[in-house]
Amino acid sequence: VSLDPAAALELGAVRVVGTGLLGASVGLGLSASGARVLLADVSPTALALARDLGAGTPDDVGEQVDLVVVAAPPDVTAAVVLDELKAHPDAVVTDVASVKAGVLGSLRAAGADLRNYVGGHPMAGRERSGAVAARGDLFIGRPWVLSPVPEGDPAALSRVRRLALALGAVPVVMPATEHDEAVALVSHVPQVAASLVAARLRHAPDAAVALAGQGLRDVTRVAGSDPALWAQILAANAGPVAAVLTQLRDDLDRVLDALDALARERPEHGSSAPGHAVGARGAVAGVVADGNLGRERIPGKHGGVPARYAVVTVVIPDEPGALGRIFADIAAAGTNVEELTLEHAPGRAVGLLEISVLPGVREHLQEALSASGWHVVA
Amino acid sequence: VSLDPAAALELGAVRVVGTGLLGASVGLGLSASGARVLLADVSPTALALARDLGAGTPDDVGEQVDLVVVAAPPDVTAAVVLDELKAHPDAVVTDVASVKAGVLGSLRAAGADLRNYVGGHPMAGRERSGAVAARGDLFIGRPWVLSPVPEGDPAALSRVRRLALALGAVPVVMPATEHDEAVALVSHVPQVAASLVAARLRHAPDAAVALAGQGLRDVTRVAGSDPALWAQILAANAGPVAAVLTQLRDDLDRVLDALDALARERPEHGSSAPGHAVGARGAVAGVVADGNLGRERIPGKHGGVPARYAVVTVVIPDEPGALGRIFADIAAAGTNVEELTLEHAPGRAVGLLEISVLPGVREHLQEALSASGWHVVA
Repeated sequence: VSLDPAAALELGAVRVVGTGLLGASVGLGLSASGARVLLADVSPTALALARDLGAGTPDDVGEQVDLVVVAAPPDVTAAVVLDELKAHPDAVVTDVASVKAGVLGSLRAAGADLRNYVGGHPMAGRERSGAVAARGDLFIGRPWVLSPVPEGDPAALSRVRRLALALGAVPVVMPATEHDEAVALVSHVPQVAASLVAARLRHAPDAAVALAGQGLRDVTRVAGSDPALWAQILAANAGPVAAVLTQLRDDLDRVLDALDALARERPEHGSSAPGHAVGARGAVAGVVADGNLGRERIPGKHGGVPARYAVVTVVIPDEPGALGRIFADIAAAGTNVEELTLEHAPGRAVGLLEISVLPGVREHLQEALSASGWHVVA
Repeated sequence: VSLDPAAALELGAVRVVGTGLLGASVGLGLSASGARVLLADVSPTALALARDLGAGTPDDVGEQVDLVVVAAPPDVTAAVVLDELKAHPDAVVTDVASVKAGVLGSLRAAGADLRNYVGGHPMAGRERSGAVAARGDLFIGRPWVLSPVPEGDPAALSRVRRLALALGAVPVVMPATEHDEAVALVSHVPQVAASLVAARLRHAPDAAVALAGQGLRDVTRVAGSDPALWAQILAANAGPVAAVLTQLRDDLDRVLDALDALARERPEHGSSAPGHAVGARGAVAGVVADGNLGRERIPGKHGGVPARYAVVTVVIPDEPGALGRIFADIAAAGTNVEELTLEHAPGRAVGLLEISVLPGVREHLQEALSASGWHVVA
């Protein structure tokens, strides 16, 4: 379920430039497999910390390396890749920047020889940053996008693929432009939308935010992200993000036009019966229906098609051991849990546990849990 | 942890008009406590189904009632409340419509005597609708907003408050206009935003949506909602929703202007180093920072201030019994779980369980789980 030490050892000596969260995590994961990892960082303090955490050995003597992983901040990635390509002409060089076309454009503009370069983006992160937050298993099970260039050596691609596999990641080959458009859709635009919704709550009355439910919590969960980091990411992918956000704003304008028509309709009628703004209701329903279709596209568990799980809901008293007891009872019933949500009820010392299972076993699990004395909410 | 039978019995005879999800759930909850529930619905089929499910007795003979709960669709709520106030002049009448000012405005426009009327909104729902999805414990632990009118009888408010308590809900008194503005912020606008983000995925390449992570899943979770129902809700609250969405669009326009400036900056510089669009970076960071502040406003567990939990992350093999074992081990460690997230790794038969606990017990739990053989991701 985790790292692939054999793949790690086949990599040879790996130089990691930049020992923040991602660089140190690469170093920790490879070092755990016994690979030789040489560390470099412009900050001697950061370098010493990564070394002390076990991420590798400082690259003091400039020994021969087979692979260079550039894990520098996005805005200096291209310059560092360029230096590394020149300094290590026989090594393969990759990077971990979350936006790829800008890096590639800068390398081309500088006239770099890119036969040994493969762009990379491991889709893993944490809310905390820096080497202290690094973990050798950060990449396990995560997509690691590889963006080879047309003139690239196929052997270079397979070496970076081996890096991803060594760290337990799932390699996904995708050109830089395609990657940037994809992350604009699935990561950058959702981040902006979450921030915009959360920002509206800043000056909201306490009584209003007290009505917040799970929906608001879900929509705004990523709004807690680091502003400086996201400014850098969004700036680096400004074009693709702006393209998607512009389409989103067009939809939003349609919703606003419809709502304005509906708001104007109210005073004339007294009741909320449909009037001349009946087309406006259709426009609003259309946006929600489009959202249904889009939501259906998101792959489910294990990257497959969206699964239709059945949900068993159980009332959980807020006391130590309650979850232990129920999962022991679920295990005793022989049922596998597909997904889990624990929702705490506002103002009550009780939670609602939603257990997603395959539809065929729902009834069995409900009966088993009821028989064990749980309050199953059918 | 649940219903309050004593409060239910003090209600006297309760007439429920409309036997969909909410009406049937009210009937089931009160009937379970032994209260007398009389059911009415324009559809004889729906009425018979609710009766067969145990929600109450059809109100055939027009007996004396003490409380009327109007659980009709939003767009006919005002008309039904008006009829019930006239038909039962000695009873208190409440409703469960999710938008309150429109109902009140219609009642005033019709010249209704509102001394016995109290607007209501139990903030509970399900993805499924109709009496078949009803549950007597639907309202347990949920806020139930009560919107009294200035001329209302205080005894009417206390009777509807008792209804909420009987069903295990948490009564929250709030004027209709304030309620509508609050739900626009915490429910209706997040729904629109989730739908807008999800709608962008409709025609996305498979390879792009395959990169979806937990962030996208969270932001779009509510985008699976029923379009017809939401068109009705948004239409009924068009003014307040439009007001919040307009502010959101203004923020979005600022982000778009900044991204456009940043996108134009790129070709001139070659690298993504900050150029004349440095103010644009600040604008983008500002929106994310505003989102941080808004996100902080959302109450945490049990309606209190946002708690700062520490997170323990554990690798869970995808096999029956794994969750049972770990929660048994957590219970053995004497640790209470505050929040839970189970995230499945794409392409791998493994999940990451994030266990939120009080900061003081994190280290203890990590050690205990490691000692039990779990792969704890520190």
